[in-house]
Amino acid sequence: MSPGASHTPPPVRDHLDRGRFPVHPWRLVERVFDASDMGKTETLFAVGNGYLGMRGNVEEGRETHQHGTFVNGFHETWSIQHAEEAFGFARVGQTIVNVPDVKVLRLYVDDEPLLLPIADLIEYDRSLDFHRGLLERGLVWRTPSGKRVRVDSRRMVSMTQRHLAVMTFEVTLLDSDAPVTISSQILNRQDGEDEYHVRSAAMGEGVDPRKAERFARRVLVPQTQWGDEEQGRMVLGYKCADSGMTLAVATDHTIETANDYTQRVQVEEDMAKTVYRVSARQGVPIRVTKVAAYHTSRGVPCRELVDRCRRTLDRVDDEGVEQQFRDQRAWFDAYWARSDVEVDDQPEVQQAVRWNLFQLAQASARAEGSGIPAKGVTGSGYGGHYFWDTEVYALPFLTYTSPACARAALRFRYNMLPAARKRAGQLTQDGALFPWRTINGEEASAYYAAGTAQYHIDADISYALSQYVHATGDHDFLEREAVDILVETARMWADLGFWRHNGGSSFHIHGVTGPDEYTTVVNDNLFTNVMARHNLRRAAQAVHELEDRWPQAYDRMVTRLSLAPDEVGEWEAAAEGMCIPFDAEQGINPQDAHFLEREVWDLEATPPDKRPLLLNYHPLVIYRFQVLKQADVVLALFLQGDEFSPEQKRANFDYYDPITTGDSTLSAVVQSIIAAEVGYHDLALRYFTAALFVDLADRHANASDGVHVASTGGVWNALVGGFGGFRDFRGVFTIDPRLPDSWPRLTYRLTIHGNRLRVSVTHEAVELEIEEGQEVRLSVRGEDVVVTAGTPVTVALDGQGPRLDGMPDPWPTHGAVRAPDGELVTASVPHAGGGSGR
Amino acid sequence: MSPGASHTPPPVRDHLDRGRFPVHPWRLVERVFDASDMGKTETLFAVGNGYLGMRGNVEEGRETHQHGTFVNGFHETWSIQHAEEAFGFARVGQTIVNVPDVKVLRLYVDDEPLLLPIADLIEYDRSLDFHRGLLERGLVWRTPSGKRVRVDSRRMVSMTQRHLAVMTFEVTLLDSDAPVTISSQILNRQDGEDEYHVRSAAMGEGVDPRKAERFARRVLVPQTQWGDEEQGRMVLGYKCADSGMTLAVATDHTIETANDYTQRVQVEEDMAKTVYRVSARQGVPIRVTKVAAYHTSRGVPCRELVDRCRRTLDRVDDEGVEQQFRDQRAWFDAYWARSDVEVDDQPEVQQAVRWNLFQLAQASARAEGSGIPAKGVTGSGYGGHYFWDTEVYALPFLTYTSPACARAALRFRYNMLPAARKRAGQLTQDGALFPWRTINGEEASAYYAAGTAQYHIDADISYALSQYVHATGDHDFLEREAVDILVETARMWADLGFWRHNGGSSFHIHGVTGPDEYTTVVNDNLFTNVMARHNLRRAAQAVHELEDRWPQAYDRMVTRLSLAPDEVGEWEAAAEGMCIPFDAEQGINPQDAHFLEREVWDLEATPPDKRPLLLNYHPLVIYRFQVLKQADVVLALFLQGDEFSPEQKRANFDYYDPITTGDSTLSAVVQSIIAAEVGYHDLALRYFTAALFVDLADRHANASDGVHVASTGGVWNALVGGFGGFRDFRGVFTIDPRLPDSWPRLTYRLTIHGNRLRVSVTHEAVELEIEEGQEVRLSVRGEDVVVTAGTPVTVALDGQGPRLDGMPDPWPTHGAVRAPDGELVTASVPHAGGGSGR
Repeated sequence: MSPGASHTPPPVRDHLDRGRFPVHPWRLVERVFDASDMGKTETLFAVGNGYLGMRGNVEEGRETHQHGTFVNGFHETWSIQHAEEAFGFARVGQTIVNVPDVKVLRLYVDDEPLLLPIADLIEYDRSLDFHRGLLERGLVWRTPSGKRVRVDSRRMVSMTQRHLAVMTFEVTLLDSDAPVTISSQILNRQDGEDEYHVRSAAMGEGVDPRKAERFARRVLVPQTQWGDEEQGRMVLGYKCADSGMTLAVATDHTIETANDYTQRVQVEEDMAKTVYRVSARQGVPIRVTKVAAYHTSRGVPCRELVDRCRRTLDRVDDEGVEQQFRDQRAWFDAYWARSDVEVDDQPEVQQAVRWNLFQLAQASARAEGSGIPAKGVTGSGYGGHYFWDTEVYALPFLTYTSPACARAALRFRYNMLPAARKRAGQLTQDGALFPWRTINGEEASAYYAAGTAQYHIDADISYALSQYVHATGDHDFLEREAVDILVETARMWADLGFWRHNGGSSFHIHGVTGPDEYTTVVNDNLFTNVMARHNLRRAAQAVHELEDRWPQAYDRMVTRLSLAPDEVGEWEAAAEGMCIPFDAEQGINPQDAHFLEREVWDLEATPPDKRPLLLNYHPLVIYRFQVLKQADVVLALFLQGDEFSPEQKRANFDYYDPITTGDSTLSAVVQSIIAAEVGYHDLALRYFTAALFVDLADRHANASDGVHVASTGGVWNALVGGFGGFRDFRGVFTIDPRLPDSWPRLTYRLTIHGNRLRVSVTHEAVELEIEEGQEVRLSVRGEDVVVTAGTPVTVALDGQGPRLDGMPDPWPTHGAVRAPDGELVTASVPHAGGGSGR
Repeated sequence: MSPGASHTPPPVRDHLDRGRFPVHPWRLVERVFDASDMGKTETLFAVGNGYLGMRGNVEEGRETHQHGTFVNGFHETWSIQHAEEAFGFARVGQTIVNVPDVKVLRLYVDDEPLLLPIADLIEYDRSLDFHRGLLERGLVWRTPSGKRVRVDSRRMVSMTQRHLAVMTFEVTLLDSDAPVTISSQILNRQDGEDEYHVRSAAMGEGVDPRKAERFARRVLVPQTQWGDEEQGRMVLGYKCADSGMTLAVATDHTIETANDYTQRVQVEEDMAKTVYRVSARQGVPIRVTKVAAYHTSRGVPCRELVDRCRRTLDRVDDEGVEQQFRDQRAWFDAYWARSDVEVDDQPEVQQAVRWNLFQLAQASARAEGSGIPAKGVTGSGYGGHYFWDTEVYALPFLTYTSPACARAALRFRYNMLPAARKRAGQLTQDGALFPWRTINGEEASAYYAAGTAQYHIDADISYALSQYVHATGDHDFLEREAVDILVETARMWADLGFWRHNGGSSFHIHGVTGPDEYTTVVNDNLFTNVMARHNLRRAAQAVHELEDRWPQAYDRMVTRLSLAPDEVGEWEAAAEGMCIPFDAEQGINPQDAHFLEREVWDLEATPPDKRPLLLNYHPLVIYRFQVLKQADVVLALFLQGDEFSPEQKRANFDYYDPITTGDSTLSAVVQSIIAAEVGYHDLALRYFTAALFVDLADRHANASDGVHVASTGGVWNALVGGFGGFRDFRGVFTIDPRLPDSWPRLTYRLTIHGNRLRVSVTHEAVELEIEEGQEVRLSVRGEDVVVTAGTPVTVALDGQGPRLDGMPDPWPTHGAVRAPDGELVTASVPHAGGGSGR
């Protein structure tokens, strides 16, 4: 391709078949059933609440790409076997368990089963309702004998009662009478499809490290099972063979119909069934309601969990099912009031934005004692593990829209602190080192170069909690818990780094990996050092703040953490002396001390069938070159933006963007934000669109593994931080928008210190209004603004910041030509996908 | 420890209990049976010929530390399961198989078994005879009922017939008559002790990556078995379940006695027995002779191997067993004439030197189509794999004493060339990349950082074959085969490296690991670059040489290798432009481009129970520091000594020696050689002694896994290259001795271009004499010398080179204080040992 050609980016397309998936502002709608991409649609239509999640499997239980019901943090453990062992390697594998499935409601008319892939469907409509928080399906089926049957169902995982799921299933014969059977099940699938931990014996080139491990043995050991025909209640209880975690699942059933029917309950170790046999008459509806409760624990006996299930079900029995639907709606009223982002006159974008924000609710709302898995509760990808995705991609959204959820996620890290201290010890470091990937707090990353070596996770967590404290003013959390994380992570950095006296004196951090997993185990990774500096400073500040303002809390903390008198000074010195790689000649920050000495990967000469790189080149090959899987320096430009001048930002973006493959979904949102900031407006929108449709258009060809939760959080960041121009460095809130040319208006909400501010950006102005609370102070394009309740403020804008044409300039020089929305890539490797990072 | 103390090295001790193991010039003798260190003694008393090896297990079959009979290269394959997969990772695990055991000769007197650990032994004597090439044992046993029984046995693996082993077993009742049973077996142990591939479920900290993998399934599938009572012949045949390799083992038995006896043959799938029941009379000897043949192949049907076994046994039947012992003696007469190294007035040293040289014969003499495993055929350590040990540590000895064996070992690499080309392709490189560890030619290193990344193996092989061609003048090998290796490895280097234009223009090699496994995946590793330069130059020279001198061979080669016109020029340019890291301020060569930027590991502050480092620190921790497992730059100073000035050598040695842990047995010999060269005479002797007794004194606490063959080769290098001062850069032979103060004379032999030269070094002179052949030209301390047959030459010496007192100077500065002979280490971690390298 000629250098000129590379300056003409391909068009932005959303890749959705709008005949099948029509645009709707508050729903994802499917008008045509298609079995060919069930993996994707099971993910897109999943329902969940952050604790319990159900993939969008069809009610009938088959066909399916992957059955999936997940409880956040409910996992099995196993001994990691390294092909070659070494001291300190991760030992305890952790894999989220596909728990017993209550979604199954099989329908037989004239003893013929309804099976969508072969059914004659006269009507079909499925929609995920972002406002009512439920999945609905309506269809009319012509049975093999020609009878038309209307089937309507709803499936909801409750936001108000996190252990609860509710399903309704209504069947009406439209033409004539017929025997109807509805078999409602709880099904524990240990049938070799989902639960098998068989790593490919062939070990072909196609092995994908992003999939969950499977088990070759039974995971869920039956503990209890019973059914009560009279009450229509059924219970199954299990214990994980190795982790010892326990689970009980119970269902209540009710039937409402004027037809004659019989009911039978059958319970076995791995299956419980309530079967209704109905002598159905034409036009007389049959309505079955199924209420399910899941309770889980680290080791409480099953009988106690069964009691908890009973209480959940009894409560619904008292309140009625419809009340649950009303509660759900009310919950989402509040959610959208806090969280909605509106893009005027862009209905496709608006729908996709709300789908993304809805996923954030589904991934985090009721996670509470747990973290936020990379796939939320929508799939088993990455084994249900927690990564830095939570802190860097999802938490900003929660902090500014649902601070209580943000606090819960941060408290989860606080509870992991003892394990993180232990892990630091295993790596011969002081303080605490949070694991790169984990469920139970122990490091589960079996490949240290792109796992354990990412020490930056300590700083990412500290960053997120600092941001949370700034945005909320939650000093109680700071002094009682967050300070412990800050101190222990600062200790880790102070111990990990060292002073080098080489002319001057500077503080260096060696042998770590930054966010970009295409360059590993380096010295002075820019991102790591900048974030560690922030971590060290913030820890020192927190200690000083306690000492000055809450002396008693300070004393308790000093005792609790055995804080030595000279420690804080050491952190401050390390922060001030921190080596920040900078290349004066090019005016850029090298990604690490020696990054610029590497050869530049010739992306132009890399054929599409060799993408993504991680599935086509040995790590040693990739590591040898200047080529990025995902934003690294560019991410630092966003998170620590006040540490870089506008010129540095542009120079860095110009340098790194052309050599960034985007093989990780964590990349496009960050590239969008900085592209917008430095002035590449088209490119920013392009990257944003790529991120917005990562799952909806299955752009990385692995939506079937579950929602890319980090990307959904990144979409919010790109909207609010990128186009919306919001920043919050050191607790100072600023707005400097970059509204895309094609968007007339962008509106978002921020909850700051308990006050909810609506920010509405047009090409001419920023309009600010308090929606709830008293007052918010911030700065718009350098102008200090105080917004008080009842008094909206409008700040006129002189354009949307700097404007640069086309693509970053050095693209042809670096030989990198690829569509920033990843089209070329996903087109050619449909079953491979985009990166071992999310 | 104070800085002063570190200048007082601990005394040199050999650690052998001389009451139990008395000194003997030609034998390793054991006078006291001791079951507590059978692992070590089974290794020390092993017999083998490079093809077939038998550990020194007791004749009775138990007790044992590890039964072991090995056929070089006879291996099972398995699919390597990586805890986290990536493209290009090694796929095919290869593990040497413990083949059926013919050593077993059980003795019962009055139906009481002879079992050494509990037997009342009146006399006991076991000796490995280096000159007769056999293991003998003599003992007198007082049976539980008080009868004295004399038992004498011999065990020999034939050097002249590599498939053959011979055992004799003679029993005489000294006091009275008694029934005697001798049960001679072929035993295939698939009993879970040896053949199990169960990686520790606990995965505790104590996992040792140096042990062989074990199998959890049956490896040897029975193919055939039969016995012939009349002839006393028994046969078992097997096929490896996964690799498909086949094996047949057959034995003949004869008994000579004047007593009455019966003979019974019993054959099962995993056992064949010949049992003699003898009515033994006092003083009437019973002599059983057992002749065994092993034949193996990659896939020839067992029946054909059985035929080969028959032919081997029939031949012995014709010639008689005693002829085999005579042939063995004659073979070793010739071996020692070529290979012996004499150290006058140092009987302990002399014995140990001969044990080491004997091991080299046992590891290599009849390896022929195979490589030389890290443990020879004496144990299953490192899975029977071939490493660079062969080329860098063992081949110099073979090249200068048994050139035919050297040629066979190099031809083995030539035969691996197609697999090496394929491997280069997997790593996206041109040419050929030899695997770091392998049996069948495929990479079996499951940990790339300290495995696959050691690209230097290409240069090591090229180095060894260049040295071989220089020493032998074997141009036939060069033009027909060796040139292919030179060209393909040069191509790999030319493609791997790249030109950087940074002021000047230089050629860089990034992302590789040098010999030192405590620093991995670095840029411009000094050793790698210096060796790659030699490789590139030597390949270019070879091509020019062919073109000039053998144009037909040149044309064939150009066609065979599709050599392009400009390739050779590229190699020469890359060699001339090769980046050779040098720090002008300190006058040293940094181990890699950024080595000196690392923190220096504080060895002084590292407690003994944290040694060796690899068993006590996560790799990421170790890699972050300046600390060496084994010589790296210092090895380059030896192999490419003409590329460094004496000042550089001393500065480098002074810098690196104090931070070298010696956690690998490959290190001490190299440190000894360079210590001697730069003038640390005491230290050189100390390192030499450490290497000399690595196995004899079990200094790394893992002699039980098998002989450290590389170290035995290193002992020869240290004798000839270190104290003897022999060098051969670019085919120029020089001698500059460094005789230890305490040694009056050192004599060694070199075969150069087919002429055998005896070199005898005293403190006053070097005496040179042709022992076989016509003439050798060389240079002694800069003086050109021509030695012709019948005309010995004596060159007077003015001392033994430079002389520096104590230890390298910067030791205290670096904080490193540890005994160079490793005493502190092995004393504290008796079951852990010294390094994943050998």
